[in-house]
Amino acid sequence: MAVEIEHKYLVLENIWDKEVAHDHMVIRQGYLQTDPNKTIRVRTKGPQGYLTIKGKAVGASRPEFEYEIPVEEANELLNHFCTNLIDKTRYYVVYEGKTWEVDVFGGLNEGLVVAEIELSSEGETYSLPSWAGENVTTDMRYANSNLTINPFSMW
Amino acid sequence: MAVEIEHKYLVLENIWDKEVAHDHMVIRQGYLQTDPNKTIRVRTKGPQGYLTIKGKAVGASRPEFEYEIPVEEANELLNHFCTNLIDKTRYYVVYEGKTWEVDVFGGLNEGLVVAEIELSSEGETYSLPSWAGENVTTDMRYANSNLTINPFSMW
Repeated sequence: MAVEIEHKYLVLENIWDKEVAHDHMVIRQGYLQTDPNKTIRVRTKGPQGYLTIKGKAVGASRPEFEYEIPVEEANELLNHFCTNLIDKTRYYVVYEGKTWEVDVFGGLNEGLVVAEIELSSEGETYSLPSWAGENVTTDMRYANSNLTINPFSMW
Repeated sequence: MAVEIEHKYLVLENIWDKEVAHDHMVIRQGYLQTDPNKTIRVRTKGPQGYLTIKGKAVGASRPEFEYEIPVEEANELLNHFCTNLIDKTRYYVVYEGKTWEVDVFGGLNEGLVVAEIELSSEGETYSLPSWAGENVTTDMRYANSNLTINPFSMW
């Protein structure tokens, strides 16, 4: 089991410019289960498929089990076994030596842009880019599993 | 996606003799989800771990996605994410050229012995061993996902 430690920020869209990204991927994901104690996610990210089980978050840390699966099977699972899909484009940005993932949501979450930084320990420090706004790490409304049920456009 | 086609029989324990098996494996399994339309199973079978998603059965056929995962992670998932575990020993028996799997259950399902034959098509024919009793393929009480909730010893 890995433990995922992530901080999440809203992105100030008047300052954010996707040209600062060195790469991007189209992500499509859905959920086999969205229990608050346990989510089971299916995702395609570019040419790859993933099946991911996440446990309950404690602060910014969350146990995670991730398995790569054939992308055709990920698409079958998304089309036939998952409800409430999310589409987003993920931009990868290096800022002061650390990689940020900026997710620009589509569909019912259009207008939402969120940035995440993955840390190797809870105490790791980092600098905030100018386009990073409010810290929403512990605001469960921004959990992707919640955005499938209560999307941004409905807030 | 594979489609699993299986026929399931009760085993007549006064006739069944485990000495006819050429191999056996200890299986431990539990469920991340036991919705009738979708089960998500974690299993250890001897030295291997598996994560399996099964869709709704139509007769003896059931869509199935199975992924091998590290056995240590399967045990972590079983211990921390799954409830209602099942322990059984699976015996492999060849009878008239086809392999039967005979599951001898332990714990709260002690006393239950079930044999399954996996077919390559719904129309495939096979011979019944003398120890095969009632056909319970479509009796959902015998689904392993149900046996975790309503075990045999409680019937």
